Amino acid sequence: MNAPFRTDGLQADAEEHEDIRRMPALLGRASGPRNMPRSHAHLTYVGDSIEVTVRALTDAAALSQYLPPRCRLAGEPVIAVAVNQLTNLGWLAGRGYNIVNVSTQIVFEGDEDKVQGRFIFCLWENKADPVLTGREELGMPKLFADIANPREIDGRWECSAVWEGFKFLDLRLDTTDGDENAPIQGGYASRGVTLVHRYHQRTGEWGQADIDQIVISHPSDSPPPRALHQKTGVGKFAFHPARWEDMPTQYTFINALAGLPLLEFRGGQYVKTKGIGNLKAFRIAK
Amino acid sequence: MNAPFRTDGLQADAEEHEDIRRMPALLGRASGPRNMPRSHAHLTYVGDSIEVTVRALTDAAALSQYLPPRCRLAGEPVIAVAVNQLTNLGWLAGRGYNIVNVSTQIVFEGDEDKVQGRFIFCLWENKADPVLTGREELGMPKLFADIANPREIDGRWECSAVWEGFKFLDLRLDTTDGDENAPIQGGYASRGVTLVHRYHQRTGEWGQADIDQIVISHPSDSPPPRALHQKTGVGKFAFHPARWEDMPTQYTFINALAGLPLLEFRGGQYVKTKGIGNLKAFRIAK
Amino acid sequence: MNAPFRTDGLQADAEEHEDIRRMPALLGRASGPRNMPRSHAHLTYVGDSIEVTVRALTDAAALSQYLPPRCRLAGEPVIAVAVNQLTNLGWLAGRGYNIVNVSTQIVFEGDEDKVQGRFIFCLWENKADPVLTGREELGMPKLFADIANPREIDGRWECSAVWEGFKFLDLRLDTTDGDENAPIQGGYASRGVTLVHRYHQRTGEWGQADIDQIVISHPSDSPPPRALHQKTGVGKFAFHPARWEDMPTQYTFINALAGLPLLEFRGGQYVKTKGIGNLKAFRIAK
Amino acid sequence: MNAPFRTDGLQADAEEHEDIRRMPALLGRASGPRNMPRSHAHLTYVGDSIEVTVRALTDAAALSQYLPPRCRLAGEPVIAVAVNQLTNLGWLAGRGYNIVNVSTQIVFEGDEDKVQGRFIFCLWENKADPVLTGREELGMPKLFADIANPREIDGRWECSAVWEGFKFLDLRLDTTDGDENAPIQGGYASRGVTLVHRYHQRTGEWGQADIDQIVISHPSDSPPPRALHQKTGVGKFAFHPARWEDMPTQYTFINALAGLPLLEFRGGQYVKTKGIGNLKAFRIAK
Repeated sequence: MNAPFRTDGLQADAEEHEDIRRMPALLGRASGPRNMPRSHAHLTYVGDSIEVTVRALTDAAALSQYLPPRCRLAGEPVIAVAVNQLTNLGWLAGRGYNIVNVSTQIVFEGDEDKVQGRFIFCLWENKADPVLTGREELGMPKLFADIANPREIDGRWECSAVWEGFKFLDLRLDTTDGDENAPIQGGYASRGVTLVHRYHQRTGEWGQADIDQIVISHPSDSPPPRALHQKTGVGKFAFHPARWEDMPTQYTFINALAGLPLLEFRGGQYVKTKGIGNLKAFRIAK
Repeated sequence: MNAPFRTDGLQADAEEHEDIRRMPALLGRASGPRNMPRSHAHLTYVGDSIEVTVRALTDAAALSQYLPPRCRLAGEPVIAVAVNQLTNLGWLAGRGYNIVNVSTQIVFEGDEDKVQGRFIFCLWENKADPVLTGREELGMPKLFADIANPREIDGRWECSAVWEGFKFLDLRLDTTDGDENAPIQGGYASRGVTLVHRYHQRTGEWGQADIDQIVISHPSDSPPPRALHQKTGVGKFAFHPARWEDMPTQYTFINALAGLPLLEFRGGQYVKTKGIGNLKAFRIAK
Repeated sequence: MNAPFRTDGLQADAEEHEDIRRMPALLGRASGPRNMPRSHAHLTYVGDSIEVTVRALTDAAALSQYLPPRCRLAGEPVIAVAVNQLTNLGWLAGRGYNIVNVSTQIVFEGDEDKVQGRFIFCLWENKADPVLTGREELGMPKLFADIANPREIDGRWECSAVWEGFKFLDLRLDTTDGDENAPIQGGYASRGVTLVHRYHQRTGEWGQADIDQIVISHPSDSPPPRALHQKTGVGKFAFHPARWEDMPTQYTFINALAGLPLLEFRGGQYVKTKGIGNLKAFRIAK
Repeated sequence: MNAPFRTDGLQADAEEHEDIRRMPALLGRASGPRNMPRSHAHLTYVGDSIEVTVRALTDAAALSQYLPPRCRLAGEPVIAVAVNQLTNLGWLAGRGYNIVNVSTQIVFEGDEDKVQGRFIFCLWENKADPVLTGREELGMPKLFADIANPREIDGRWECSAVWEGFKFLDLRLDTTDGDENAPIQGGYASRGVTLVHRYHQRTGEWGQADIDQIVISHPSDSPPPRALHQKTGVGKFAFHPARWEDMPTQYTFINALAGLPLLEFRGGQYVKTKGIGNLKAFRIAK
C-alpha cells in the first residue's frame, strides 16, 4: 500500500510542528489538536458531534464542597451530564471518540479574572490519547471509560459509561415531545467560558502539589460549531456507587458523584453540530 | 449480589487513603499503587510478571540526542526493549496490564545526585489508568497502545504493540538454546536505579514548561520481586515508521525510535517473577 | 434507572417473536434482524450505511477455483472489496457494526434457478453476534475481525481490517476527482441477486458435510435503501499474507485472497445510504 | 521481522491440514483445534486453565423445560456456572480466551446411547473464532460476551460476563475456608460425558430446522488435563434480567436463566489445570 496516497507524515518533525512537547518530551514534538502538522492545519476545526445532555437539581452545600477556592455556584445547584460522540475529527485523521462531561455554572473571582462559566468537575473519554493530552495541556480532569455511542430509538436516547465491566453511569433522554427551536443550554457546542481545576501532584513529596490552579477558556479563537439539529427532552441519569474492587483507580470520584442528591430532573437536549474547537485559548486564570 | 463478599469500598474516603490527589483533585482522594486503601494495604506488593527483553546496539550519537541535559550514555549505546505482562495486581484488585519499555543505561550528574541507572525513553501500556497515574505521579513517559500478551510456542516468544490497528513494534525472542542460570540484565525485575525525564507543558503558554526535571528512583522500599523462572535467548525487534494518519498523536515518537540504527542484536531474556514494586521511592533529582 | 423508559423487553418471549431458533435453541426464541420483537417491528429496516468499495481485475482461473459447482464468472474476473459502516440499526436497538465484503459477479445454473448475481466469497464483521446469525441463518461466510470505521480526509478514504493486531487488509479510495452522479456498481446498497455457499461440517464425521448448498437472495421484500450521497474514485487494496501464528483460525482464507493477482485496479465508490435490508428473502437455490 | 523465526504458515494448505472445512469453505481448509497444522500437531493439547465454579439448586420443573427430548435430570436440579480462563493455547499459537458455561447433570436415553453426563445449556466466550467453530463443528451453544479474567483477592474470586456494557452475570467464590483435597465436581477439567443440543435453522424456511440433534462426547482421545491446584469454597451467582435494548440478540436466553429460582447455593471450587482437550471425540448421539 505504498505511494499514491502517502502523505508527508514522515517529513522532518521540526518543519511540521510548533515546538510544543509532552512526555516523552525529547523523542519528538507533540502532535495534537493544539499542534497540528502544518501540512494538515486546514483540518484543525473539522469534526462532527452529537451531544445528549440531562440536567438535575442537587443540593447546594453538597455540590459546593467539590468546588475549588475562589469559585461559587452561579445560581441554582444544577449539574449537567452530557454525553458526546465525536466523529470525523481532523486532528485524529478522521477518527473519533466519546466523552462524558459533568458540569455546573459557577462564578470565579480571581485577582483579575472575574467570570461566570461552566465548571467541569470531571470528564471521561473512551480514548486514552485525548485523556492525557487534555489533562496535561489543559488541566481537564479527564478519566478513561468505555462509553458506547449514544443510541436512539423512536426519539429516546440511551447512554452509559462503563469501566472494565462496571457501569457507573446510565443516562436517558426522551425527545418525543421536545422542541426543535429552543435555545441550547450549555454543552459542548456552547460558546461560553469553561473553567477547570488543574492539579499535579509533586513527585516524591506525596500530598504536595506542583501545580494547583484554575484554568479558564474563552473558545473565541475557534470558528463556532454549526448546529445541524437539536431537540429538547425530558430525562434522567444515575451514577452508580462503586466498590474499590469495581473501580480501584476511580471509585472515590464515582462515589462523590453518586452521593449527590438528585432532587429534580430539569430536562435536557440533543444537539448535532458540525465543527469543533481545539481549546487552544485556555490559559491560567489570575 | 449483595452482602457476603461486600468489602469496605464505600466507607469514608478519608479513613481509607492518604491525602494524595490527582485530577479530579477535589472529588476525592486518589486511590492507586502509591495510595492503597488502608484496608487493602497488605496487597501493595502483590502481583505477577513475565517479561520478555531484547537488546540491540545502536549509534551513540543518534541515541544521545534523546537524552536530557546532565545525562550521558553509561557505556555502549545499547537499547533494551522489554515487554511485560502483569497479572494479579493487588492495587488493581486482581487485574493486570501489559507494558512496553524502551531504555538504556546512563550516567546522571546533578548537583547532588551522581548515579548510573536505567533511563526510560518511553513506555506503552494497554490500560489508561496506570498511564495517567504514572505520567503525573512519577513523570513516567507512558503512552497508550494495544499490547497483546506475549505468546510462547516451543520456547519462542512473540510480542507486539499496536495503536488502532497500526503495529508499530514487533519483538521476538528465541530461548531454545538459552541459559536458565545467567544473571538477569536490567528489566522490570531488576533492582537498580531508574531515571525518567518528567515534563509538563504550561497551559496557554505553548512551548513553555511548567515542569522539566529528572526524576530518580531507588526501588528500595519495596520487597524485591522473586524470580520464578528465567532463560536467556537470541532475538530481534523493529519499530515500524508511522504516518501522521496512522498514529496522529504518537508518530513523531515512533519515528524517532524507528530511525535509530540497529547495528547488532545483543540477545535478551525471559523472566517470570512474583511480587511487584510500587515506585513510591521516586523523587526529583537534584 | 427504572420505570419511565422501560420497554416491553421482559414480556413473554412467545408473544414477541416468531418461533425461530438458534442455539441455545431451547432457552428462548431467537431475536434478530429476521425475527424482530413485534413491539419493535417498525424498526426492521431502520439503519444508516456508508460503504467504500474498490474493484480490481484478477486472473480468471485463479478466481474460479474458489467458486462452488454450478457457478461460473459472469464476465471479467473483477473482485470488489467493500467496507461498510452500519450505524443506528433498528434491529440492534440503535447500535452498529462494520463489514468487509469480498465479491464477484457470477452466473449460477441450478436445476431451476438460473441467475446472475454477486457471489460473496467471504465477509468480516467486527461484532460477533451478526457473524453467527448470518452464518447460521443465511450461510453468509462471515468471520470476525477488528474493522475500524472508514476514515476520510480531504476526500481520501482509508480502511483496514485487523485480527488480534495483524492487519490483513488495507484499502484506500481517493474521490478527489470523482463523479457524484455515476451509477453505483454493486455493493451493500445494490438491489441485485446475492449468492453464497452455505456449508456446515458434520459433527464427528470430520471432512463430511451436513449442509453444502447455494443460498440465493432477491432483497425484494425490503424497502430499497435510499442513497444520500455518492462519489466515484480511484483506489487500491491489498490482502497481506498471514502466518499460522498471526491468524491461526483464518490464515488459510487470508492467504487464498492474498494470492490472487491484482492485475489492474478498476476504481470504486463511496456511497452513503439510509435504510437497510434484513435478507429474510434468502432461500436455498434449486 | 523476517527470516529467523518464520514458520511454515504459508506452505501449501493441503499438506498442512486434513480436508475439514467451514465457511468460507472453498477458500481453504479450516485450521483449528480439531485440525491443527501438521507442523504444529504437537501443540494440540497444550494449554492452561483456571476455572471458578459455583453450583445452585433450582426448581426441577423450571429447569427441565429447557432440556431437549430424550433428556431428563439425573438427580437434583443443580446448575453449575463455571468461568474459565484459558491461556497459552497451542491451537491459538499461544493465545487464550475465557468461557462461561452453564450446565446440569442429565440422563440421555437414545435408541442406542444411554448415558449420564453434563448437559451444557449455554456458553459464552470472549473470542469470536472459537464461538463459531464450536457452534458449527460441535453444536456447542456458544455466544459472545466480554468475560474478564477471574480476579482473586485474599482467596475470594470475582467473575462477570458483560455484553456491550450490560453485565448479565456476577459470580463470586470464597475459598478462604476451602479444602484443597476435595474431589473436583464437574467442570472443564472433568473427564465425564458432555452433551449438547445441536440445532441449525433452515435458510428461508423460517421456523424449520436443518439440524436438530443431541451431540455427545467422551473426551477419551485427549490426554487428561493435570490438576495443579484446587480448592473448594462457598459462593453465589446471579443472572441479571435484560431488556431487548440491553442485549437485542441474547435477551431471551438471559431472561430464561435469570428466571430460574436459585433455592440454595451448593458451593463450588477453583481448579487450575495444565493441558486441554480438543473435543474431537464429539459425535451425533443415536
